[in-house]
Amino acid sequence: MKAFYGDLRLGILGGGQLGRMLIQQAINYNVTIKVLDPDREAPCRKLCDEFVTGSLSDYETVYNFGKKVDLLTIEIEKVNVDALEQLEKEGVIVYPQPRVIRLIQDKGLQKQFFKENDIPTAEFQVISSAEQLQQSPMPFPYIQKLRRDGYDGKGVYKVIDESYLQNAFTAPSLIERWIDFEKEIAVIVSRNAKGEVATFPLVEMEFNPEANLVEFLISPSTLSFELQQEAADIAKKIANNLKIVGLLAVEMFLDKHGKILVNELAPRPHNSGHQTIEGNIVSQFEQHLRAIFNQPPGDTAALNNAIMVNVLGEAGHEGPAVYQGIEKVLKCSGVYIHLYGKALTKPFRKMGHVTIVDADREKAIEKARFVQQTLKVVS
Amino acid sequence: MKAFYGDLRLGILGGGQLGRMLIQQAINYNVTIKVLDPDREAPCRKLCDEFVTGSLSDYETVYNFGKKVDLLTIEIEKVNVDALEQLEKEGVIVYPQPRVIRLIQDKGLQKQFFKENDIPTAEFQVISSAEQLQQSPMPFPYIQKLRRDGYDGKGVYKVIDESYLQNAFTAPSLIERWIDFEKEIAVIVSRNAKGEVATFPLVEMEFNPEANLVEFLISPSTLSFELQQEAADIAKKIANNLKIVGLLAVEMFLDKHGKILVNELAPRPHNSGHQTIEGNIVSQFEQHLRAIFNQPPGDTAALNNAIMVNVLGEAGHEGPAVYQGIEKVLKCSGVYIHLYGKALTKPFRKMGHVTIVDADREKAIEKARFVQQTLKVVS
Repeated sequence: MKAFYGDLRLGILGGGQLGRMLIQQAINYNVTIKVLDPDREAPCRKLCDEFVTGSLSDYETVYNFGKKVDLLTIEIEKVNVDALEQLEKEGVIVYPQPRVIRLIQDKGLQKQFFKENDIPTAEFQVISSAEQLQQSPMPFPYIQKLRRDGYDGKGVYKVIDESYLQNAFTAPSLIERWIDFEKEIAVIVSRNAKGEVATFPLVEMEFNPEANLVEFLISPSTLSFELQQEAADIAKKIANNLKIVGLLAVEMFLDKHGKILVNELAPRPHNSGHQTIEGNIVSQFEQHLRAIFNQPPGDTAALNNAIMVNVLGEAGHEGPAVYQGIEKVLKCSGVYIHLYGKALTKPFRKMGHVTIVDADREKAIEKARFVQQTLKVVS
Repeated sequence: MKAFYGDLRLGILGGGQLGRMLIQQAINYNVTIKVLDPDREAPCRKLCDEFVTGSLSDYETVYNFGKKVDLLTIEIEKVNVDALEQLEKEGVIVYPQPRVIRLIQDKGLQKQFFKENDIPTAEFQVISSAEQLQQSPMPFPYIQKLRRDGYDGKGVYKVIDESYLQNAFTAPSLIERWIDFEKEIAVIVSRNAKGEVATFPLVEMEFNPEANLVEFLISPSTLSFELQQEAADIAKKIANNLKIVGLLAVEMFLDKHGKILVNELAPRPHNSGHQTIEGNIVSQFEQHLRAIFNQPPGDTAALNNAIMVNVLGEAGHEGPAVYQGIEKVLKCSGVYIHLYGKALTKPFRKMGHVTIVDADREKAIEKARFVQQTLKVVS
C-alpha cells in the first residue's frame, strides 16, 4: 500500500457526518480524500480534495469512483457491493471488505453468522413469505425486521399479537424473540490487516422512561468488570471471525438476567463512538484510519467520563436549520459542540451532537440534561 | 453579527498550518470559510469553501477578499493593514483589530507600548540610522531586531562587540539589552468584544544545551504558582490595554533573577499553543473562534501533561517531503501526529507537530525525545 501520509488516495463512500468527522481526523495525516454521495449538499462537500455527486447503490457510479482511489472505505453500509467486489479484483483495496459489507447489509445473514459462530443473540427465524410468518412458532410478542435497508428504527415492526400480523412486512425479513432488556450497550472494536484487534470501553445507552427514548450515551460504564470483559470478548470474537479490516460497532442488549445478546453490527464509525473524540486517548475516527492503513491500534482508554447527546431536528420543524441555545451551552466547561453542516432540518434528523466531559459523573449527567433542554434545532 | 453557526462568512488571511487547524475546529460550527494565501498549494487549500490565491500585502487583493466576508481574521500578522482599516470603516468586522495588528507588526511600536503600559521588558532603544547605532550607549552584547517583517529568527542579529557593528542591519530597528535568561515561557490569552479575558496555563520551552535549540514545549509548568500568576497577569494586562479581540500569544523570558520580561506578541493562534488541542479542555483554536464570535471563553484548564514537538524539515533535504518513522511513533500511547499538508520540505521548515500526552511527566518527556529521534522529514 502507498504511504497513507504520502500520496495515497482515500475514497469514502458516503459524505455524511461520519465521513465529515473521519476527514477532520485524516487532515492530520495529509491524506488525499475523495468522497461520493448522492446529495450535492452533503456534510463533506467542502472538506475533501474531490467531491463526486452520485448514487451509492449504482454499480457504474461506485465502480468509476473506486477506480480513482487506492483505498476505499465506507461511512454507510448501503452501497453497491458488486462494484466493490469488482474493484477488489482489480487491485483497489476495499476496507471493510466487500464480503463483510454484504453480510452485514442482510440482517438474515448477520443472524446466521451469529448462530454459526456461537455469538449470543436473541432467538430468531428467517422469514421469506407471509405464510411462513403466520405459521411461525415464535411466541408473541416478537420483532419483525426487514432483512435489508432498515435504518434508524425504520424497517422494524413489533408484532404484539395475532392481530398485528395483517400489517407485517411482506418483504424478506427475520423475526426475533422480544428481549425485555435492562440496557442497551455497545462496544466498538477495530482490526487491521495484521490481525491486531482493540476494543473501546463499553458504552451504555441511558434510556429516559418518560420520553420513551435513548436520552444519551455514557462512557465508561459502571457495569461490572466481568460484564464489560464479556462484551469486549464478544466484540473481538466477531471482528476476528469476520476477519474485518476497519472499525466494527457491536450493538448489544443486556437482558434482565444479566445476559448479553448481540443485536446488530455496523462495519464503520458509529453514533455510539462519537464521545471518543474528546473522551478517549484515540477517537473512533483515528482508530478506523489506523485500521485501514494497517497501523497499530491506538490506546482506547477513557480519559474521563464522557456523555454524547444527539442534536436532533425538533418535531414540527422542517426547512433551513436554526440553532437555539448554543451560546448558553458554550458557557459550560467541558462541553463540545459538533454540528454536521446540514442546511435543512427535519424532525429527528441528526443535525449534530454534543459531548460532555467531566471528572465527576453526576455533574456530567447534569450538564448533559442541560444541553438537551437548551440546544434546539428549529426552522 | 450574523450567527457564526449560521450564515456568517469567515475570512482568514493566510492559509498555513494555523489556518488549517483553525478550520479543523471551525468545522464543528458549520462556519463558511474563505481563505487568502499567496501559495496555491497552501495547507488550507482543500479545506475551505473558497480558496483565493493572492498577496496578503497587496491593498487591492486584501480589500477585495475582505469585501466577500462578514468577519475577517488572520493567521499571520504580515498583512496589508491599510486595507483592513478601510474594510473596518465599511462595516466588515476585523478581529484582531487593524490598529492592534499595525502595532504588533512594528517591534518598535510594540516595545513603546510595553514601556507606556508598565509591561516589564528588556531595556531597549529604537534605532533609525547607522550613526544612531554607533553612538548608542547600550552596553555589549545586545540584540538588534528589524522593526518589521522579522520571522522565526530572521531579522535578529546579536551584536557581541564593536566589530559586529559593520554587519548590523541598516533598516529601522531596535536594539535590546541581552537577557541571559533562565527559560523562555509563553502565555496565550484571549479576549472577546464583551471584554471577557482568559489565559491558558503557562508553557515552558525546554532548551537542549547540546543541540543549542528549543527542544520542546511543555505544559503545565512546574514554576511556582506566584510566577505563573504573574505571567498570566501580565498577559491579561496586555490584552486589556490593547483591547484586542481574539487570541494573543505573549512570549516571555524568565531571567536568572526570577524576573519575567515580555519579549514579543503574536495576535493569533501560536506555535506555543498547539498542545492545547489534546492537552487542555479547550484548544487555542476553539478559543480564538469563541473570542472573535463574541462567545464566552472556554475552560483553559490542562487535562494532562502535554508536550509539543515541532516536526521540522531535516537539514540537507529539499524537495517533495518523505516522512520517516510515523509507524513507530503511532505505537506509543497518547501521541498525536499533526502533519500540515505541505508538499515540499526544506531545512527547518515546519512540516507538522506532534503532541505527547501522559499523566506521568517523566514518561511524557521520554516519549517526546523518542518522537524527536524517530520522526524525520526528508526528501
